[in-house]
Amino acid sequence: MEKKYVILENPELKEVAEAFNNLKRTHVITIFLNCQVDYQGRAKSKLEWGDKLLISKPDGTLMIHGKVKREPINWQPPGSVSIAKIEEDLLVIRSVRLNPKEILIVRSPIVYVFSAYRMDLTRFMLWDSEADMIDTVMDNPHLIEEGFHVMGKEVQTPYGKIDLLGFDKNGNIMILEFKRSTAQLEAVSQLKRYYDYFNSLGHEKLRGILVAPAITSSAFKLLRQYGFEFKQMKPTVSKKKKPNIELLR
Amino acid sequence: MEKKYVILENPELKEVAEAFNNLKRTHVITIFLNCQVDYQGRAKSKLEWGDKLLISKPDGTLMIHGKVKREPINWQPPGSVSIAKIEEDLLVIRSVRLNPKEILIVRSPIVYVFSAYRMDLTRFMLWDSEADMIDTVMDNPHLIEEGFHVMGKEVQTPYGKIDLLGFDKNGNIMILEFKRSTAQLEAVSQLKRYYDYFNSLGHEKLRGILVAPAITSSAFKLLRQYGFEFKQMKPTVSKKKKPNIELLR
Repeated sequence: MEKKYVILENPELKEVAEAFNNLKRTHVITIFLNCQVDYQGRAKSKLEWGDKLLISKPDGTLMIHGKVKREPINWQPPGSVSIAKIEEDLLVIRSVRLNPKEILIVRSPIVYVFSAYRMDLTRFMLWDSEADMIDTVMDNPHLIEEGFHVMGKEVQTPYGKIDLLGFDKNGNIMILEFKRSTAQLEAVSQLKRYYDYFNSLGHEKLRGILVAPAITSSAFKLLRQYGFEFKQMKPTVSKKKKPNIELLR
Repeated sequence: MEKKYVILENPELKEVAEAFNNLKRTHVITIFLNCQVDYQGRAKSKLEWGDKLLISKPDGTLMIHGKVKREPINWQPPGSVSIAKIEEDLLVIRSVRLNPKEILIVRSPIVYVFSAYRMDLTRFMLWDSEADMIDTVMDNPHLIEEGFHVMGKEVQTPYGKIDLLGFDKNGNIMILEFKRSTAQLEAVSQLKRYYDYFNSLGHEKLRGILVAPAITSSAFKLLRQYGFEFKQMKPTVSKKKKPNIELLR
């Protein structure tokens, strides 16, 4: 399966050429490298080797950026076609612009970092607020799981307010922590503090649930270590009501 | 010590904010992220969340690139000042342009890849050719080590030509493979074939030496596995003689 992103650290040039050719039509690619840039026909001797940032886009755009300034040092427009090869131990990327015909040539003896990301055109959905998420669950408790029963929201503890507290069908106490965007390590620790507090009160039938549209891999790892659960909850249609300005006038 | 490059894969937003603030003055930074871009004062509701490529340069330039086209979607010029923070669980990067005063705000719930590279302004030196390197060593055998004695160059074997063959002061046969740019895995394998060939002829006092201005980490690992040595040799002043065009006329 095609990867969402690819990172190569201090890679072999052959790896870079392969990855570039495989991903150039689907991924935005950035390469930190040492290179020399040339146009077909120009004298090579006038050009300098230097550290650069190369950017390639799926539409054929190619840019060579230096350490400073907004403008790329060299570039080819959308519609250009780039191919990477190994020639005389160097990574060579040729970008051909068709009209007018112009060939930009990048020669590199060393690549430091290659990264590529398949940018989605679909939009990331974000909840308006955590209160929105909690209200949605209060109205539709089955979104968490069948048999989930809400006890109360914003339940005060010495360690802060628990977003939502409830029971499952087996009588376990469920502690729910909500995050409107990607859940991070801190969210897991927050849930852990509430869990330990309930535990210290003598409750043993406890479940910790983190509710968010996404979670980072490090946060997920910690979550599993604590024996907690992750419940993904993405917004479908924005529930935000627009104020009726017409009526107010 | 400050790192030459930093890569963060699927990082916590807090990590990204810290890395951005620490490296923004010295490194060129690229971030693949989902974000919303806003200018101070504009209505937030009109803006979309989407996958973007953010580029920050040490001179203060900030660019937000989309999946296509040469032009950034949003940007701030050199001299702008950017600061990253965590606000309401989001990564927020504010870039302030002083004259005219304009504030660009990037809000991100998720970062996929962060990479930063400290671009050198010093130029990478490249040998004109491997023949150049070999000639330099023939003229100055001590560049390899004291007591190195050249036997011959371009020595034919069934596996190709050995660049340089010689003896060290202890009578070991030295097999030298030259690369004019960063040595890759393939260079190590080439040396291995020559070494094994000499070994198969009954030679036991053998040393394999890879000579290049630099070597990749994977090539170096393989080199050590085989018990070979790496000799770094950087060009100092170009030895290339320019043809005397004046005289030819």
